[in-house]
Amino acid sequence: MTNFFERHRDLLERAVQAWRTREFWTPFPETPSTKLYGADARRDGHAAYEALLGAAFALPGHPEAARLGSERSPWGQDLAIRYPVAPPEALIAASQAAGATWGQAPMQARVGALIEALIRLNRMSFLIGEATMHATGQAFPMAFQAGGPHAQDRGLEAIAAAWIEMTATAQMALWEKPQGKSDPLVIEKQWHLVPRGVALAIGCNTFPTWNSYPGLFASLATGNTVMVKPHPQAILPLALTVKVLREVFAEAGLPQDAVLLAVDAPGDEITKPLARDPAVAIIDYTGSSGFADWLREHATQAIVFTEETGVNPVTITGTDDFEGMCANLAFSLSLYSGQMCTSPQNIYIPRAGIATDEGHKSFDAVVAGIVAAIDCLLADPQAAAAICGTIVNPATLEHVAAARHAGQVVRQSGETGAGRSATPLVVVIEGDGPGPQDDECFGPVSFVIPCEDAQDAIARASGIAARKGAITAALYTQGPELIAPAAQAFAVAGVNLSVNLTGNIYVNQSAAFSDFHVTGANPAGNASLTDTAFVAPRFRRVMIRWPKAA
Amino acid sequence: MTNFFERHRDLLERAVQAWRTREFWTPFPETPSTKLYGADARRDGHAAYEALLGAAFALPGHPEAARLGSERSPWGQDLAIRYPVAPPEALIAASQAAGATWGQAPMQARVGALIEALIRLNRMSFLIGEATMHATGQAFPMAFQAGGPHAQDRGLEAIAAAWIEMTATAQMALWEKPQGKSDPLVIEKQWHLVPRGVALAIGCNTFPTWNSYPGLFASLATGNTVMVKPHPQAILPLALTVKVLREVFAEAGLPQDAVLLAVDAPGDEITKPLARDPAVAIIDYTGSSGFADWLREHATQAIVFTEETGVNPVTITGTDDFEGMCANLAFSLSLYSGQMCTSPQNIYIPRAGIATDEGHKSFDAVVAGIVAAIDCLLADPQAAAAICGTIVNPATLEHVAAARHAGQVVRQSGETGAGRSATPLVVVIEGDGPGPQDDECFGPVSFVIPCEDAQDAIARASGIAARKGAITAALYTQGPELIAPAAQAFAVAGVNLSVNLTGNIYVNQSAAFSDFHVTGANPAGNASLTDTAFVAPRFRRVMIRWPKAA
Repeated sequence: MTNFFERHRDLLERAVQAWRTREFWTPFPETPSTKLYGADARRDGHAAYEALLGAAFALPGHPEAARLGSERSPWGQDLAIRYPVAPPEALIAASQAAGATWGQAPMQARVGALIEALIRLNRMSFLIGEATMHATGQAFPMAFQAGGPHAQDRGLEAIAAAWIEMTATAQMALWEKPQGKSDPLVIEKQWHLVPRGVALAIGCNTFPTWNSYPGLFASLATGNTVMVKPHPQAILPLALTVKVLREVFAEAGLPQDAVLLAVDAPGDEITKPLARDPAVAIIDYTGSSGFADWLREHATQAIVFTEETGVNPVTITGTDDFEGMCANLAFSLSLYSGQMCTSPQNIYIPRAGIATDEGHKSFDAVVAGIVAAIDCLLADPQAAAAICGTIVNPATLEHVAAARHAGQVVRQSGETGAGRSATPLVVVIEGDGPGPQDDECFGPVSFVIPCEDAQDAIARASGIAARKGAITAALYTQGPELIAPAAQAFAVAGVNLSVNLTGNIYVNQSAAFSDFHVTGANPAGNASLTDTAFVAPRFRRVMIRWPKAA
Repeated sequence: MTNFFERHRDLLERAVQAWRTREFWTPFPETPSTKLYGADARRDGHAAYEALLGAAFALPGHPEAARLGSERSPWGQDLAIRYPVAPPEALIAASQAAGATWGQAPMQARVGALIEALIRLNRMSFLIGEATMHATGQAFPMAFQAGGPHAQDRGLEAIAAAWIEMTATAQMALWEKPQGKSDPLVIEKQWHLVPRGVALAIGCNTFPTWNSYPGLFASLATGNTVMVKPHPQAILPLALTVKVLREVFAEAGLPQDAVLLAVDAPGDEITKPLARDPAVAIIDYTGSSGFADWLREHATQAIVFTEETGVNPVTITGTDDFEGMCANLAFSLSLYSGQMCTSPQNIYIPRAGIATDEGHKSFDAVVAGIVAAIDCLLADPQAAAAICGTIVNPATLEHVAAARHAGQVVRQSGETGAGRSATPLVVVIEGDGPGPQDDECFGPVSFVIPCEDAQDAIARASGIAARKGAITAALYTQGPELIAPAAQAFAVAGVNLSVNLTGNIYVNQSAAFSDFHVTGANPAGNASLTDTAFVAPRFRRVMIRWPKAA
């Protein structure tokens, strides 16, 4: 049996160090380059993807009562892959049966196998990228990064955080208590790390691997078995993940059913019966606050970790690089057509305009600058498709259409010409009444909101983050005097703030090992990827103690 | 302004080390000795206690709309201390107002002040002991230990755990991402530690300081303000604690109202309105599962940490020291008349008896040995009162009376002659039907349950721990072959197991820095004192990042 832990111990230690220092680090190159991934990687990945289409997906030994699958790519293709399906009770039973050995395996065995699986998934990143592209409608470069190496980073980060916590306290101790003139009391103590039980990882449509890996790998590392429940339209990336994990577990002499795929059909989802099952002790969920509320109300037997709805604000009070700011925002607004949980939505600008390196710019001029930058960025249809990707959920197009009536449209949403697409709609909101800008409007929709002044803009931006949740906030400012109060306001609102981003770094980006994704301090979610609070409650310490024999 | 952090940095580092190694350590001597605490400590403590009786308790600057207090000692004395009371909304407002500065104070300032307060509380241990004795009905030696140094240990442990977690990741970082042949992207990042908000620490009647200090000090260390809501019959120990904290905060230039005393009257409790207030983000609670369920259902805006009801089992399958075992169990059953959350309740013994160093002992002989040991331990009335203390809640006497009808009484509960007292009742349960042994029977009641054999005894003991919750379990066994399966069974049941305890170490005892009190893995509570999961969610990390100026 391969000792994966010894093989990957250095990598784990490097990951632990990165987690602590929050400096840049990754073992998984983000560029889809054949120099890095091998000369044949692109071709092989594509061939592997093609071979999966229209076929039964092989998951040897997996519970299976039937086959199911109706994935259709937003780029236009029917995947027609048929996955094994089993009723919830069969999945629970298999997961519990595997749990008896998985939970008692040495943590080194589990952690070693999980890192090995991530490394194999990394080698498959072209296939994962293509699978992610067609599950999510992202363009390939983004699908490769977000579905492959960036997700693998998040998985490794979760393993590192779990490892840190599992090894934070001694696993055995000799407790010697002085007894005055008598001999000391000497007690031997040992602690077992006991998992919670069965975990449920509920995947989303837009980032099936990136958003699922933290909970998946954290639960597995800490000894829980996991049922992976993909979105019915985004099964393949997680099916590949489950397949690789099961293969490695088998090689390591660990129970394959420690990870299961819980496939269902749209309209006939098994999420609710799985989530309410008394055996399910942990739930990781990414999606709407509505369903998160349902989970909190009904799955009270489980700890529920969530990433939910939010309204990400941009506050523009000034800039030393007007062109750079507009270009940067244009990219952030266009990338994957605003379908990232980190995409900006509301843009707060003083009504009187702002000071810039190009002199004073009126409110209208600032808005015009952003619109022009979007137009420029998306002028070439091929570039537009490569940045915007497609719209994963047809309902999003209806939201875009409805948002047109919210105010003055300063940029119409168009199409890129590839797949089901929509480029950014930009709407200036007149007046201070309630409107769609008060809630998440998922997709390529931005609302520009005129404010009294810079302070008012910061107050409104941080206020909506606190009230409605936000994962990201951006601030542009010319003088340093606004930074401290803004930092304070957004800290209290519990939202990570990016200041004066220009060039090749975007507010949407959240790098593993450095950026905690979601703070857990506002309604946009209670889980912070990946802090200790995300891993520590997944297992418990149970002691056995006895007097040391004299 | 005194730099308490620098003064206590070594102590903090020593506490951190003890928390990690789980070896014996304490800075707070547990013996009520005038050699350790000063020649006048006992006399001064008593004088200070006497001076408080019948008077208005001074809490300068504390919100106050009226005065209230009706504490009556189970030893017989009316305390007649009048504490300041304020309506819930006034307490919330004051707590929130203090939070603005408390939460933003450097963590070193908070942690330094909290350690200083513990050291001052330690010096007052004779007063705290007397206050605890009359709040809880414990005998003085136990009240001194549990209310004083042992509680202070638990407070320091919580501070250490919070400190470890607050400093686990860098507070600032330079994130340099390679860009191929171009200059690297360089982003500066800073993290603010943001508290959740207002915390509510709900004290219990039996261990007002020991059970409240972990949540109280963990919340304060991580930047939350705390409202301390004592049991109406056990106010004084927590009032003294709040007073010392407020004094130290004032000296340190920190807001006194970071900690408040939320006194109410029996029958007119303010716990529910406080717990449901939207501002309350953290609740620490020790008490019945019934009220814990109420909190989980109604205080959904808060994280709720609990220690709840349970049934602690003893399993006797054999022993190499029959006399030592009986004496040890007799003390565990008698101490504070079984009113500890760690007191054993159900005793599982094979029907056919057990092997011992004194030869085979029948079931009846084992029971008789335990009963005789209790009788011997409590033969002297003064010793009996010093061990059993008194019964804190009159309703407990009714439970004792009712338990007499559960089976064959092999030891009647008697009185010690001091205060409202009751010595252990021991009842053998005949038959396998349901009965009071299936639930917690708080107080000096033990049920002895005949089992098929050793395996059955372990299965039943671990089974009730898993189903009903348990904080402690004890096992006596002669051969080593039972230890591994028993360790496994109790680990799965999530209960800490003590094996073959004899002499001066008891299953009831849980030492800070070494024993995690409550595992969080069965219904006896979700909070483990003090693991990382208990401190990590009390604060969140919020980032601000910006491109480094070239």
